[in-house]
Amino acid sequence: MTMTHAPDGGRRRREREVLADAIALSRSALGVSTPNPPVGAVVLDTAGEVVGRGATEAPGGRHAEVVALDEAGERARGGTLVVTLEPCDHQGRTGPCSARALAAGVARVVYAVADPNPLASGGAQTLRRAGTDVARADDDEVAAAEQGPLRAWLHRQHSGRPYVTWKYAATLDGRVAAADGTSRWITGPDSRRHVHGRRQEIDVVVVGSGTFAADDPSLTARSDDGALTDRQPLRAVMGLAPVPPGAAVRGTDGRFRHLATRDPAEALAMLGDVQHVLVEGGPRLAGAFLSAGLVDEVEAYIAPLVLGGGRSAVEEAGVGTLTDAHGFEVRESATLGRDVYLRMTRRPA
Amino acid sequence: MTMTHAPDGGRRRREREVLADAIALSRSALGVSTPNPPVGAVVLDTAGEVVGRGATEAPGGRHAEVVALDEAGERARGGTLVVTLEPCDHQGRTGPCSARALAAGVARVVYAVADPNPLASGGAQTLRRAGTDVARADDDEVAAAEQGPLRAWLHRQHSGRPYVTWKYAATLDGRVAAADGTSRWITGPDSRRHVHGRRQEIDVVVVGSGTFAADDPSLTARSDDGALTDRQPLRAVMGLAPVPPGAAVRGTDGRFRHLATRDPAEALAMLGDVQHVLVEGGPRLAGAFLSAGLVDEVEAYIAPLVLGGGRSAVEEAGVGTLTDAHGFEVRESATLGRDVYLRMTRRPA
Repeated sequence: MTMTHAPDGGRRRREREVLADAIALSRSALGVSTPNPPVGAVVLDTAGEVVGRGATEAPGGRHAEVVALDEAGERARGGTLVVTLEPCDHQGRTGPCSARALAAGVARVVYAVADPNPLASGGAQTLRRAGTDVARADDDEVAAAEQGPLRAWLHRQHSGRPYVTWKYAATLDGRVAAADGTSRWITGPDSRRHVHGRRQEIDVVVVGSGTFAADDPSLTARSDDGALTDRQPLRAVMGLAPVPPGAAVRGTDGRFRHLATRDPAEALAMLGDVQHVLVEGGPRLAGAFLSAGLVDEVEAYIAPLVLGGGRSAVEEAGVGTLTDAHGFEVRESATLGRDVYLRMTRRPA
Repeated sequence: MTMTHAPDGGRRRREREVLADAIALSRSALGVSTPNPPVGAVVLDTAGEVVGRGATEAPGGRHAEVVALDEAGERARGGTLVVTLEPCDHQGRTGPCSARALAAGVARVVYAVADPNPLASGGAQTLRRAGTDVARADDDEVAAAEQGPLRAWLHRQHSGRPYVTWKYAATLDGRVAAADGTSRWITGPDSRRHVHGRRQEIDVVVVGSGTFAADDPSLTARSDDGALTDRQPLRAVMGLAPVPPGAAVRGTDGRFRHLATRDPAEALAMLGDVQHVLVEGGPRLAGAFLSAGLVDEVEAYIAPLVLGGGRSAVEEAGVGTLTDAHGFEVRESATLGRDVYLRMTRRPA
């Protein structure tokens, strides 16, 4: 496909495909880029061929645009840079991406999300002033990028606190344990594999001291053979009870935190500049975060089982009557082996 | 598409499409054909064009094959009859379908499910003896037909009791009412419309006397404007408590049954020769049917809400430990407005 001769409609169609690719690519930066945004970038040459792809590296490493432009080298000249977030304009650890794009000689930049950070924004303007053709993606593409891997970072920029996902695994009747307390395993191996994948993408896993006491979980991200994966989240236990020295959750890598409070907002503040917190249980911790209005997203792993008794997934969520229920919107649904996976975000008030 | 000159592969592809159409068509016979099977039939002419379509009419009316052959008339001659169930061979109220197909002069008959009823079977053999080319559909097509609208009727043929679907509407945490008892409406209008559609397709709706006492439900099938639809299920209340004369569920059409027992098997026996029973609640009735091993299918309407308290969807299902949980397999999933719909069938033991 030759971009230079294609009508505008053809070029935009191509750029839409490439932006979707950049969004997908940025997922690999989740849990890696914090506190920087997980960005994806793709460089097209003058003929519309992909000549560079990149995602944000760990702090101190390269931004996505730089990774993609490095890969493209001279082939970027006269080409197009497609990126999920407006290129930064500030001299941080890595130098502004706007200057790097100018040096590479790209003729056009297409970005989705405008940078909400006043220190970093202005990249689009700098590029335009230097004669680069800069285009914002269409509204639906922007929305897709905002709902994609950037969502936790964006949430932190706008609200000043991390994005909180509550994850649970329950039966059809919402039970997380049978009458005798048995709970392993309610969901199947595909669901558990999915959970371990998600643990690699977030910054902190939090459980309550009740779950900690009952299960002694390690909260690590593991592959099928039980081996630890490269990327591990912080592990946190929230609650006033002490966490004994021998607890599995402590590990030996210094990535354990005891959040000695019963207040979810205080616990989040204790975690500092993290983007994405995964609340994994149990029922009382979930209830506390829900009551405090601090659940932004729900990931439900629903097993097609019925218990008819035992512990429910949530206790004391501050709801007395139906109209006060905590409401969510389904964003993704999938089948994981026998189970059903739903990802939901908080319903606007 | 000209069948007579198409290679066999092309003809089978066409017949596969047409059989899928016949299965879809047979859905219109649900709740209408009982105690006869809900069958769908399509007639193709010699050129492979559809010239007749039919579904089983109400008892005393025509079988699906006859409806389709009547519509096709002379164009059936030399053509193909595609039908979800083996054409019957017995002189019932309507005369054997095998004879009707021979009289119409069809050259080929393709059917999916073999008739398990010893009184009706033998249609395929009769047709073959008369020189008709008779083919059984492929295994995957047979499975699709068996899992389709015929499943309740087939279940009755094999087990001697009706097929039981338990339907419930609950929050993510499996609640069917909030702490103060409020429960209208947990699910949205699209889910409720779907429920009313399903009520038209089954034979009997059953609730327990607890639900009856709490909600005074009418259990009728209604359209969006509240008007009764043409086809109404039997309405049943199960339990020993009397159902007072003024109760909405009694109605005035003589389609009400009081099943004065606490035993689900006894209740099903009281209903006589019905194919499909929809158990709509509440938690104790669901628990009783599950405990008795009498739930063949589950229809779940899951609202993306969290209550954290209130009544759970199932009580006392006879399960003490996780390995004894009642297990199902997801067959269909869909989004209904904000809600998630899951249809599941019982997991083989």
